[in-house]
Amino acid sequence: MTGSALPDWRDSLPWPGAGTHKHARGRLGVVSGKATQTGAARLAARAGLRIGAGLVRILCPPDAAAVIAPAIEAVMLTPFGSPEALVEACEGMDAVVIGPAAGVTELTQANVRALATTGAALVVDADGLTAFEAWPEGLFEALDRDDVLTPHEGEFRRLFPGLLESGREAAAADAARRAGAVVVLKGPETVIAAPDGRLAVNGNGTPWLATAGSGDVLAGMIGGLVAQRMDSFDAARAAAWMHAEAARGFGPGLIAEDLPERLPGVLAALHEQGS
Amino acid sequence: MTGSALPDWRDSLPWPGAGTHKHARGRLGVVSGKATQTGAARLAARAGLRIGAGLVRILCPPDAAAVIAPAIEAVMLTPFGSPEALVEACEGMDAVVIGPAAGVTELTQANVRALATTGAALVVDADGLTAFEAWPEGLFEALDRDDVLTPHEGEFRRLFPGLLESGREAAAADAARRAGAVVVLKGPETVIAAPDGRLAVNGNGTPWLATAGSGDVLAGMIGGLVAQRMDSFDAARAAAWMHAEAARGFGPGLIAEDLPERLPGVLAALHEQGS
Amino acid sequence: MTGSALPDWRDSLPWPGAGTHKHARGRLGVVSGKATQTGAARLAARAGLRIGAGLVRILCPPDAAAVIAPAIEAVMLTPFGSPEALVEACEGMDAVVIGPAAGVTELTQANVRALATTGAALVVDADGLTAFEAWPEGLFEALDRDDVLTPHEGEFRRLFPGLLESGREAAAADAARRAGAVVVLKGPETVIAAPDGRLAVNGNGTPWLATAGSGDVLAGMIGGLVAQRMDSFDAARAAAWMHAEAARGFGPGLIAEDLPERLPGVLAALHEQGS
Amino acid sequence: MTGSALPDWRDSLPWPGAGTHKHARGRLGVVSGKATQTGAARLAARAGLRIGAGLVRILCPPDAAAVIAPAIEAVMLTPFGSPEALVEACEGMDAVVIGPAAGVTELTQANVRALATTGAALVVDADGLTAFEAWPEGLFEALDRDDVLTPHEGEFRRLFPGLLESGREAAAADAARRAGAVVVLKGPETVIAAPDGRLAVNGNGTPWLATAGSGDVLAGMIGGLVAQRMDSFDAARAAAWMHAEAARGFGPGLIAEDLPERLPGVLAALHEQGS
Repeated sequence: MTGSALPDWRDSLPWPGAGTHKHARGRLGVVSGKATQTGAARLAARAGLRIGAGLVRILCPPDAAAVIAPAIEAVMLTPFGSPEALVEACEGMDAVVIGPAAGVTELTQANVRALATTGAALVVDADGLTAFEAWPEGLFEALDRDDVLTPHEGEFRRLFPGLLESGREAAAADAARRAGAVVVLKGPETVIAAPDGRLAVNGNGTPWLATAGSGDVLAGMIGGLVAQRMDSFDAARAAAWMHAEAARGFGPGLIAEDLPERLPGVLAALHEQGS
Repeated sequence: MTGSALPDWRDSLPWPGAGTHKHARGRLGVVSGKATQTGAARLAARAGLRIGAGLVRILCPPDAAAVIAPAIEAVMLTPFGSPEALVEACEGMDAVVIGPAAGVTELTQANVRALATTGAALVVDADGLTAFEAWPEGLFEALDRDDVLTPHEGEFRRLFPGLLESGREAAAADAARRAGAVVVLKGPETVIAAPDGRLAVNGNGTPWLATAGSGDVLAGMIGGLVAQRMDSFDAARAAAWMHAEAARGFGPGLIAEDLPERLPGVLAALHEQGS
Repeated sequence: MTGSALPDWRDSLPWPGAGTHKHARGRLGVVSGKATQTGAARLAARAGLRIGAGLVRILCPPDAAAVIAPAIEAVMLTPFGSPEALVEACEGMDAVVIGPAAGVTELTQANVRALATTGAALVVDADGLTAFEAWPEGLFEALDRDDVLTPHEGEFRRLFPGLLESGREAAAADAARRAGAVVVLKGPETVIAAPDGRLAVNGNGTPWLATAGSGDVLAGMIGGLVAQRMDSFDAARAAAWMHAEAARGFGPGLIAEDLPERLPGVLAALHEQGS
Repeated sequence: MTGSALPDWRDSLPWPGAGTHKHARGRLGVVSGKATQTGAARLAARAGLRIGAGLVRILCPPDAAAVIAPAIEAVMLTPFGSPEALVEACEGMDAVVIGPAAGVTELTQANVRALATTGAALVVDADGLTAFEAWPEGLFEALDRDDVLTPHEGEFRRLFPGLLESGREAAAADAARRAGAVVVLKGPETVIAAPDGRLAVNGNGTPWLATAGSGDVLAGMIGGLVAQRMDSFDAARAAAWMHAEAARGFGPGLIAEDLPERLPGVLAALHEQGS
């Protein structure tokens, strides 16, 4: 049950080919919280774009559009007023991130479940997990094996009470089976587990990642790789490693906003090694 | 029908002279989409300014002004409420970019045709092309030979159904003759064709350009060069080459917002070679 | 009464450990002024985040939320409409900065006193001090010894009339005793005094810090360190030194917005020396 | 009538001393245009802050406040609704820049004349000049010898019809005498003339400055130096030289937003030479 060595995902990284069009390169959606809580979605969207999704669109409550619109350029924006409108706005998306600053509400529950009816792979993070604390089955029954849950320990305990007592690796493995999706149990040594039993432990964690918004960036990175049709387990492993590598190279004083801007350097090093 | 060698446009680049005033250096307009869709115009405007247009003004629907205004400094802004008001706002412009995030609507049709009555050279991109899918003659009859169309293959097919069957170069050449304007058929090897039969294939394409907003930047770059009165065919060739060169130097992790900021380096290298 | 040598606080710097979660790393609140005066809070918040607080939240009057929201990403935001709501919004905060651009009003008085009832250590700066000019006891009686006041000489005179006549060091020492809190008397040689008699003089001051917003950044830095549970006297000494070091390395042309972005370099040097 | 060698202003540059407070370092106001035209004031304000004014405040029409507020941090903001309110908002200012994007209106006339009744030195640029085309005496009678006019040739002709026929240097000298203020006649070789007969020609001009907003930055730089109580003639000479030096070091692709960010490098070189 020890994790596999990490660099083996490198050969699966979705580098664009000579003829790759931006649509073919992958379309990522990121669901934003309300007007005062849009920074998390913007961080995730930026990370998803930097890691190579060809198109990234933030889906936001109508009153948040005026906040987000002036703060984005290449990232696109669609307001939505109901779970049904969210589904419509996500037509053609390859992956959608939901949860960062989404609010622990029934609406978030409804939005997650509505998104699960689309063809997009989901990355469910933060409030998207906690919203199902009292009804984890409502989440699990909606998930597919290419979906990804990204709880820290607190969120993990809410969805999978008791599991952590058997240790982080066993807990993550068990959770992935129960949820029927990839589970990324974040921490100093992030554990990534797939429902088919694959398990990995990320080995390059760094304390500089303990900063607000860091998890939003990770969710966006996973979403960006999955949107490019990287296998979700590999995408989660690759993102966890690159996320930490970006932070490690920065050192003290890191804030989450630095992470997407560090990705080109991390990606370039991986690209060169591969060629 | 092979493309001419690219660097021959270098001698035509519009470097300012000692006495060049910003107005003489060229005035570029960029038409913005609605309030939630202004990023494309901001990218194009930034690119046009960086590539040397002396003045760049975004023309926007009234409700988009509050979104754009806080996000610009050197770029200027004029709201317009009708095609007639757009024409008035573009008085004295040397070139205007229309299409990025403009919306596939009759209003976009009307705006393009209204702009064609001004003295400005047009760069018609994206929705500005697709809006004429059902009425290509409505576009072609409005164009002059110094206007530029910048379709990717999907947009090209909508305007010129069937042409691509004879190959990209022949198709672009035929399209330029039909449209009576320069046609930039984007792709891994972008083809540039003039209505007088000149044809070029850009040779430095890179897959890193397959990212949202990349085309908006290219349209702004072409517009910025044409505004400086560079020949439209040469401007399109030069912009396509510099656009790819900017991306190539950046590598993986590139997003469209990086491209205008890379232009000074690309321009400096061209300037030094010329002196 | 000479100040102790400064680098002795270096061993007290709150570096995160392998298992530090962002919540455990410290939660900082920053109270914003009204809608046209939010820059000071954003500067302080950015500095607090850069110096290592795990979570930083701006607390703002309701009408300021639309201004702040588009300008932040990793920093979070909660509007509040009354001192009671402010207290509620600050639940769980480790430290709160109040004063920068807060307004010299009774409401600011009420907000400071309300915050003093929470468990958070306070950093009271600028208008948060001047608001008590006519009622210094109203401030002092609310303070704890881990709270910090950061007056420049003008603000110091308003709160402690006459004290400066005995010299800056004696005045700061006396003020700290009267206020029952750490006093940071800013100036070319900033004096830091604790109510228990500890006294230090910062020795690396630089004139480049005489720029608008510089004090807001210092307040945020102190708050960010205190939020990480660094002793308030040590935090004030460390922040004063790092603040000046960041400016000194930049030189002429420095503006306050540069300071938080210089912190990673300053922190890295301190971190390397310690390892 | 040949210009004096330029570097002789270097000894007059207002470097802050050890005890300089931000208020003592100089307070600059910048009057903004309406809500869609605020970029010019933000460029000027940024330049004034970078060049060393201790405090910089944008004064704006009430409806422009929501646009400017999210885009500034260290720069401050005060809305004003009338010339009288503008005068009140400028109390204590050392210098005020008015004109960039101000609008060619009677209100601009009234604002300029109202500001002339304050103790602040004025830098009148762009629309602040053109607004007096039909009534130049209304401007000249309001000016003091420490005020500065910064016309390009077009604006110069409107205020001083016929003067340019005697050559740029003679024209500037004559204009300065008529206006009773320093005149900066911009161009490839910018001419600076004082009402007392001093005259200088800037020798390091560069065509890269022919870009929108470049003049706004120059006005802010002059204002920033005058606010620090540098002699207005020296300030204009120093600003013209540094403005060109900042552009020259950047080369092709320069936009006005780059200029303030280049000032620290230019200032550092001057500072080192002086020590």
